[in-house]
Amino acid sequence: MQKLGKADETKDTAFEEEVTNFNKQMLEGTKLQRDLKTYLAAVKTMHECSKRLQDCLADMYEPDWFGKEEMDALAEDTDVLWTDFHQKLVDSAVINMDNYMAQFPDIKARIAKRERKLVDFDSARHHFASIQKSKKKDEAKIAKPLALMEKAAPGWAQGIITAHQIAQTNLTRNQAEEDLGRAQKVFEEINYDLQEELPALWNSRIGLYVTTFQSVAGLEEKFHRDMGKLNLNLVDIMTKLEEQRQAKKPAK
Amino acid sequence: MQKLGKADETKDTAFEEEVTNFNKQMLEGTKLQRDLKTYLAAVKTMHECSKRLQDCLADMYEPDWFGKEEMDALAEDTDVLWTDFHQKLVDSAVINMDNYMAQFPDIKARIAKRERKLVDFDSARHHFASIQKSKKKDEAKIAKPLALMEKAAPGWAQGIITAHQIAQTNLTRNQAEEDLGRAQKVFEEINYDLQEELPALWNSRIGLYVTTFQSVAGLEEKFHRDMGKLNLNLVDIMTKLEEQRQAKKPAK
Repeated sequence: MQKLGKADETKDTAFEEEVTNFNKQMLEGTKLQRDLKTYLAAVKTMHECSKRLQDCLADMYEPDWFGKEEMDALAEDTDVLWTDFHQKLVDSAVINMDNYMAQFPDIKARIAKRERKLVDFDSARHHFASIQKSKKKDEAKIAKPLALMEKAAPGWAQGIITAHQIAQTNLTRNQAEEDLGRAQKVFEEINYDLQEELPALWNSRIGLYVTTFQSVAGLEEKFHRDMGKLNLNLVDIMTKLEEQRQAKKPAK
Repeated sequence: MQKLGKADETKDTAFEEEVTNFNKQMLEGTKLQRDLKTYLAAVKTMHECSKRLQDCLADMYEPDWFGKEEMDALAEDTDVLWTDFHQKLVDSAVINMDNYMAQFPDIKARIAKRERKLVDFDSARHHFASIQKSKKKDEAKIAKPLALMEKAAPGWAQGIITAHQIAQTNLTRNQAEEDLGRAQKVFEEINYDLQEELPALWNSRIGLYVTTFQSVAGLEEKFHRDMGKLNLNLVDIMTKLEEQRQAKKPAK
């Protein structure tokens, strides 16, 4: 019994570390998921404000000013670029993140279940241990009364009484041993699965961070590249509008 | 008088158009100023959210992962880039816009003053016109009673009565003419200034739009260019972290 107890103890220390990692991982994931969604909301807000500013210019832009059509096209292109950027962020990073986070509640529930099954297993083990202990006491007791019984009962009855008492003790012991075996099996199954899954899940976080930030940074890079081009177009239209204005000035 | 009235009327139609333009320009400017500030607020929000997301990765990033230092440096560079972008937008576009908008209240007040001075001028003109009219009537009246007076008054008195009445009428007329001259001078001065300033102000809007959007688009273009580079760095670090993870996998 002492040997089994020690083995369990060793296993639990390793498992506790895994649970600590699991909780850390879940916290980090929850924070990342929340920060990603806040970032997405900021992208949407910035899209709206940027669109309003660009529309403001497009609305003020008079038909006879240089590049009126280019200006309208530019406002539309900018709008499309923002919409596309936001949608792609949702489609890749956010959905990926959501799928990753969806694993946690089930595993968390199974960690709690393992805890309960460990309590069952421990209680079955203690029960069996106490029966083993009392069996030794009973054997000592049975050995004692027999000395008195020898005087009261006839010789043929003495063997029957001893056999009956031994049989009863064995029955309780077998029941407790069966219960212990069952509790151990249930615990070890769930424990085995978790000890397989938790380190794998813990290791998967790096992959998730890589995928998420590679996708966010990749989409951002493309967005910045395309937006930079549209900005250059706008600078160009503005320069030509100023040239048009300067050319008109002395004529008027 | 008819001639002066017509000239004023013509002037007013042109001026009314200028005032219409002024009001349109002030409305457009107010909207642009507001949209620019909303955009600036969105830049600040996006900076905060983007920083939180990047810090989230930096915080989770373990010391033995590839490029821990590069990751911290990247988070700092991104932060500096955002701060710089926001500050430069404020320094150029927003301050420029605020200076432009600061002209409007004074000119608006002077348009209202011109309106009041026009009312004064009109009332002085009408006053003078009615005195002119009554002078003619008086001359007719004076001519009539004289026929009766001829019978009542001695011959030497007739000329004195007529002279006195004429002198009195002339005094009122001179006063009204002086008032009219003063009112006209005050009105014409303010009117002249506004007729000089309003078309110039109206024309200056194009320059403001050019300056504002050239500066916004220029700063954005630089921001997008630099941010794109930082994004590429992040993609690169992520790729190498994934390679490190893959290399470690079979060893464990």
